[in-house]
Amino acid sequence: MLFFTQCFGAVLDLIHLRFQHYQAKRVFSSAGQLVCVVNPTLNSKHGSSRCASSRDSTPPATQHHCQEVVYDAKLTSCSCPLYSCKWEGHLEVVISHLTQTHTINILQGAEIVFLATDMNLPAPVDWIIAHSCLGHHFLLVLRKQEKYQGSPQFFATMMLIGTPAQADNFNYKLELNRNRRRLTWESTPRSVLDCVDSGITDGDCLVLNASVAQLFSDNGNLAIGIAITTNTLCSLETKI
Amino acid sequence: MLFFTQCFGAVLDLIHLRFQHYQAKRVFSSAGQLVCVVNPTLNSKHGSSRCASSRDSTPPATQHHCQEVVYDAKLTSCSCPLYSCKWEGHLEVVISHLTQTHTINILQGAEIVFLATDMNLPAPVDWIIAHSCLGHHFLLVLRKQEKYQGSPQFFATMMLIGTPAQADNFNYKLELNRNRRRLTWESTPRSVLDCVDSGITDGDCLVLNASVAQLFSDNGNLAIGIAITTNTLCSLETKI
Repeated sequence: MLFFTQCFGAVLDLIHLRFQHYQAKRVFSSAGQLVCVVNPTLNSKHGSSRCASSRDSTPPATQHHCQEVVYDAKLTSCSCPLYSCKWEGHLEVVISHLTQTHTINILQGAEIVFLATDMNLPAPVDWIIAHSCLGHHFLLVLRKQEKYQGSPQFFATMMLIGTPAQADNFNYKLELNRNRRRLTWESTPRSVLDCVDSGITDGDCLVLNASVAQLFSDNGNLAIGIAITTNTLCSLETKI
Repeated sequence: MLFFTQCFGAVLDLIHLRFQHYQAKRVFSSAGQLVCVVNPTLNSKHGSSRCASSRDSTPPATQHHCQEVVYDAKLTSCSCPLYSCKWEGHLEVVISHLTQTHTINILQGAEIVFLATDMNLPAPVDWIIAHSCLGHHFLLVLRKQEKYQGSPQFFATMMLIGTPAQADNFNYKLELNRNRRRLTWESTPRSVLDCVDSGITDGDCLVLNASVAQLFSDNGNLAIGIAITTNTLCSLETKI
């Protein structure tokens, strides 16, 4: 009897997921685009003090010309980008940590749709996906945070599992689209060596207040179109 | 002596304006685009209760299909979109009120650059321009407002001097562009019969928190590229 109840539960979950896929596809009508349903990663504690401490010589994030600061991925220290996780390790093992400890799947492709579910959960909460394209791993982090009580904000930022100089070789675009409204943010990814918090403080991310998030969300789900491209300017400079 | 001092002051002002024009042109490189330097309109009092009261039958702003609600511009009541102004009058005389009382110039062209100066002034403060294109008058209102003390936000919205059904025939785009970051908001203008406040509450405008505004501003000035187009979908429906 228990077995049949569990089977029925699994079928219901599948129908729910299928419905969420359908909703996301309805928002982003371009055929063949990968839709990724992302459930929230609940946080219990503020982790803003977890930034890597071994990077005092890192150029500031607002300085965006192509640089050639040399980092050794086996030696450079890095922290988990999730708000609640205290993990610290070397750059080359961040992706293993995310996939093994947080069971994050790695998607393939430079253009995907990120469908964050349960937007109405109380802050702080993170949504995260990893995707692999253009020879690198990228992370999209969406964070709901309350700077002022009763006024949650959403911050979406793209991070490269790599150094700031490598991040400078790419551009990314995040797009919200609903009811004849479109909000687009285009920028250069930040390195995972930077804190997510520093991007939020600098305003260097897509920021949505509660009303804007509500306007673009559909039944508590927020679909964000993502596209990553190579920054031709930096690639040319590197070749020269 | 006083005359020469005043002349010198005027020359300095001209040099300052010329420098602001140069800065805006540097940001928006498309040749021949009109740059409009917009000084703030200081406000002394909250005017959120000034919404037109004779419009209970107006469809909500989130309902965006082409409608044919009939308004008589000589009878429909409307309030000044400026935060500090208590004026109320009929729809057909709003533009006269703005040009005569607030000395707002009417610019020509569907694509212009709005250069808001003195972004660091304390809230509340409005910047406004009127422009004429596609057979109508439009207003761009940029409002700096503090919902939470010490946390000012900027809200930019486009309004049509016309009815909600007329506003539905157009789309507009606002674009901020600086240091390899671009933020774009595309939407349908709201009717000037709606309150600016209602657009802010609904999240139906470009919202910038202080950090994002700082990221895109240059020496206290914020350049916003504006483009207005006809909504072909509604035009087609009207023709059919």
